[in-house]
Amino acid sequence: MSNYQAPLQDMQFLLFDVFAVDQQWRQSPALASVLDRDTASAMLHEAGKIAGECVAPLNRSGDEEGVQWIDGVVTTPNGFKQAYDTFCESGFSALTGNTDYGGLGMPKSLSVLVDEMMYAANSSFNLYVALSSGASMALDAHGNEFLKQRFLPNLYSGRWGGTMCLTESHCGSDLGLIRSKAEDFGDGTYGLTGTKIFITGGDHDLSENIVHLVLAKLPGSPAGSRGISLFLVPKYWVNEDGTLGAANGVTCGSVEHKMGIKASATCVMNFDGARGYLVGEVNRGLQCMFTMMNCERLSIGIQGLGCAEASYQSAVAYARDRVQGREAGVKSTMDADPIIVHADVRRMLLDMKSTTEAGRAFAVYLGMHLDQAQYAPSAEARYQADAIVALLTPVAKAFFTDLGLDSTVLGQQVFGGHGYIREWGQEQLVRDVRIAQIYEGTNGIQAMDLIQRKVFANQGESLKTYLHEIRRFLQRDWQGEQADFADQLQQRVAQLSELTEVLLQRAQHSPYELGAAACDYLHVVGYVTYGYMWMKMLSACAPNTASHLTKQKTGAYYFKRVLPRVDSLIASIQSGSDPVMSLLAEEF
Amino acid sequence: MSNYQAPLQDMQFLLFDVFAVDQQWRQSPALASVLDRDTASAMLHEAGKIAGECVAPLNRSGDEEGVQWIDGVVTTPNGFKQAYDTFCESGFSALTGNTDYGGLGMPKSLSVLVDEMMYAANSSFNLYVALSSGASMALDAHGNEFLKQRFLPNLYSGRWGGTMCLTESHCGSDLGLIRSKAEDFGDGTYGLTGTKIFITGGDHDLSENIVHLVLAKLPGSPAGSRGISLFLVPKYWVNEDGTLGAANGVTCGSVEHKMGIKASATCVMNFDGARGYLVGEVNRGLQCMFTMMNCERLSIGIQGLGCAEASYQSAVAYARDRVQGREAGVKSTMDADPIIVHADVRRMLLDMKSTTEAGRAFAVYLGMHLDQAQYAPSAEARYQADAIVALLTPVAKAFFTDLGLDSTVLGQQVFGGHGYIREWGQEQLVRDVRIAQIYEGTNGIQAMDLIQRKVFANQGESLKTYLHEIRRFLQRDWQGEQADFADQLQQRVAQLSELTEVLLQRAQHSPYELGAAACDYLHVVGYVTYGYMWMKMLSACAPNTASHLTKQKTGAYYFKRVLPRVDSLIASIQSGSDPVMSLLAEEF
Repeated sequence: MSNYQAPLQDMQFLLFDVFAVDQQWRQSPALASVLDRDTASAMLHEAGKIAGECVAPLNRSGDEEGVQWIDGVVTTPNGFKQAYDTFCESGFSALTGNTDYGGLGMPKSLSVLVDEMMYAANSSFNLYVALSSGASMALDAHGNEFLKQRFLPNLYSGRWGGTMCLTESHCGSDLGLIRSKAEDFGDGTYGLTGTKIFITGGDHDLSENIVHLVLAKLPGSPAGSRGISLFLVPKYWVNEDGTLGAANGVTCGSVEHKMGIKASATCVMNFDGARGYLVGEVNRGLQCMFTMMNCERLSIGIQGLGCAEASYQSAVAYARDRVQGREAGVKSTMDADPIIVHADVRRMLLDMKSTTEAGRAFAVYLGMHLDQAQYAPSAEARYQADAIVALLTPVAKAFFTDLGLDSTVLGQQVFGGHGYIREWGQEQLVRDVRIAQIYEGTNGIQAMDLIQRKVFANQGESLKTYLHEIRRFLQRDWQGEQADFADQLQQRVAQLSELTEVLLQRAQHSPYELGAAACDYLHVVGYVTYGYMWMKMLSACAPNTASHLTKQKTGAYYFKRVLPRVDSLIASIQSGSDPVMSLLAEEF
Repeated sequence: MSNYQAPLQDMQFLLFDVFAVDQQWRQSPALASVLDRDTASAMLHEAGKIAGECVAPLNRSGDEEGVQWIDGVVTTPNGFKQAYDTFCESGFSALTGNTDYGGLGMPKSLSVLVDEMMYAANSSFNLYVALSSGASMALDAHGNEFLKQRFLPNLYSGRWGGTMCLTESHCGSDLGLIRSKAEDFGDGTYGLTGTKIFITGGDHDLSENIVHLVLAKLPGSPAGSRGISLFLVPKYWVNEDGTLGAANGVTCGSVEHKMGIKASATCVMNFDGARGYLVGEVNRGLQCMFTMMNCERLSIGIQGLGCAEASYQSAVAYARDRVQGREAGVKSTMDADPIIVHADVRRMLLDMKSTTEAGRAFAVYLGMHLDQAQYAPSAEARYQADAIVALLTPVAKAFFTDLGLDSTVLGQQVFGGHGYIREWGQEQLVRDVRIAQIYEGTNGIQAMDLIQRKVFANQGESLKTYLHEIRRFLQRDWQGEQADFADQLQQRVAQLSELTEVLLQRAQHSPYELGAAACDYLHVVGYVTYGYMWMKMLSACAPNTASHLTKQKTGAYYFKRVLPRVDSLIASIQSGSDPVMSLLAEEF
């Protein structure tokens, strides 16, 4: 039932009108050499076409068929291989890849939008691609020249896929506990043994080979997270001449049966003395993972955004079509009106629309900072951008996906009973998006990361820088309603600032204070950030452009009906950790 | 994986310590003759046993198997028939039935708790029972003596099931649009023709016969909802001697494939000149339905509560068992601690616990008012109770189920990745509870019912009565922390009162005002009501009883971390309908 249409107009509005991202591209020689405004627009157009015409039509059939596991071999649903080939042939598997090894070297400010389209069209499908991209990025950052030359070109072309093998059955959030072992063969290769679970794309039939990045411990390494190394283990050994050799002791033991993303192979992977290479330094495996974490987390966050957009588009179409009840206060000759006339239906649609559009802006904003962190000419600018990325990535991951669930639930609700039936596709979006709050670090872990490592650890410095940026942006001559919104946001920024001070104080004395506040605190930062994004969008609206008028009304909805949510969150946090911690474990 | 244990201790605390419901039972001769405190406790114990040992073990297998539809015949999953027989033989299918026709005549204040247990154990299973019970209630209220004698005893015994056939493909919320037709055969029977969809239990193999209550239009009846009549149409015609005759032109065209409640048969029912009886008066069909609506809506609300409780129990067990990460601020010799030590995990568990316990209290409170509306000696008392029931039933239905989704999502989140995998059962609870926000009137419809019919239509009179009751209850000599909570609730009541005045004023001038406020308004009433329930529970706590200390801590969590949510809701409502209505339909 999906009729997904990439929101190209809104994307271009963000890139060029709101953020003038092409200026940033022009300032970096590396970026200026690969794209300009027209190339970017053409690529978005092409991605939208593939998403809408090629990937989206497989979303429901993929959910119905799921992946098949037979004797250790995983088969993806009908049509996935063909769509994958189209996607790769169009260059999208190489989108942000290093140009030295066959990548296209495109900026994150562009790829976040492509990511949104693909997740919106088919989350299961895009996961194969996203994991390959993540593995490539880790390899590019930490692999030696030999590994990069041998593996990156085929990863970029999509001939080979990539995975990240971190989780084991007894540890997910707490990777210090992992038990997988690596043995040094003394010839520059290592033997990997252990079982990994929840491995996305651990086995499948889309590519000729699969490159696994595996966390494991070498003998005698320190306990906990300081004793973990990263290894590259191919499914089929790659010969000197680049041809594929024998199967390499990596097998898929089973696939999980899940609530959603059923066309994504979530595998139990058994490593039985499988041969691999060390990536980066011994015992620095977790750090290697962390360098790419910000991109991966943002990507998974964008799954939330994409699913919300897909659900919104279907809900609007249904609300225009479905007649039921009459418009309040209007004498109509109709038996019933389209349900889009009802205020409560509009509330649902506007909750979705106002948060998804702000989220899209935030994704571009973060993408630009990721680009700056990589390409800015001065070290200072790179450092500044990196600090913003570090601060806001957990917010994006958790907030996009929390609101992604809320939005898809609303989009399902608009359909009434028909939303609960499989054929309309709205319930699938709820099931598919739900995982995004869990994987790539649960949203609870993101909240702790934000409040503990990104705020407390530097005594709120990065946050201050960010809030200062917002304050500075608000110091312009806003007119009319926008002046009110700017005032409101100014107040929220002050509240957040004050709240942070209080928490930093309290955390000196109570070990539970940050944990008790974490989730609500992240949401406060999220809502304030969306307010900032809305002010940026409003500032780019021309008075007489129809689409800009709609923007302004949607922004007004955000300030009047959504932003006030921070009041309750702050009140809840203010009550401190005592109410959270006072029960003994056995009292639950 | 379910290990559901009915929370009997909490249920008895509510019935006897908080609400002294046995006093109310003793005051009614009808109730006093069928139960006392010991009978009630024994029945709860027996229901808990059936729920835990007999019904819960079928929850996951039922989800995996689903219902089968083959050539118009529906088969329930393995074990359902046996569990149904056990349930009925133990008398629970007759629980609240009229004693004149073989019912047990038990009060709603008891049956709400049995309902909670059964929904917690297996929502799909309990739906068959709940629909039969609803159909029996409608028949008892509106059928003539002939119909009651012929049909009620077998409905109560469970030999026959019952359904409610309201929805058609083009109308659910707006029943005025229905097209099913009835033809008067002139011999006291009617011929029914049309297609109904989403009919829970429309066909199945649990009972010998199925009694359909069907809304349809007689020729020449007025347009819209004033021209709808109610008919009883058995699957097999019932002969004069009570034996079953031929199949009666009612067939199940298909079953829906749904997000959840997969073991519940959701049927497309085709009536092809099927013979039936008129129930109640011509063109009063909707009114007949409405008399039982309050019970049905409360029952469906309780599905939300039951699923939340089941999810909570599993989440607590998992949080005690799963080790991951270390307790903040504690030097431990362990590699990792059970995750129940983490503040953010406790936040999730306490959100669930504090709202589910308040919800259970509210269910008993409403059950008692339903009993009063039926059994109170004075007409005045019956009228008063009925007004409270009418006011608060939409709140219970929507608030229980909205928080039911929130709770099951939290319970799933506690499990991390394992919550997304089918084998643990947490994801099923999310899928199963989701329907409860939709059927039996979507929560948007409940919100409109509350604000429009139950508040606006009587200029806030019922609400005033209710708030006055809360205020009166709060006027006692609260000690310590409870005095703060009483103050807080007092303030919230004042805010709600003021908000209502504002809305009533505005609604005079703007037709959209109520609709734009509806959903948030219902949540405000819900949170205030839960605060009231918590004060009732706190007032029944003895200082040195261990379970009561836990209650007090849980109540404190509610006031400090949950009740503040009303701040944002009120702020959002205050902004009025303009932000909701300003977009043109084509701007979405």
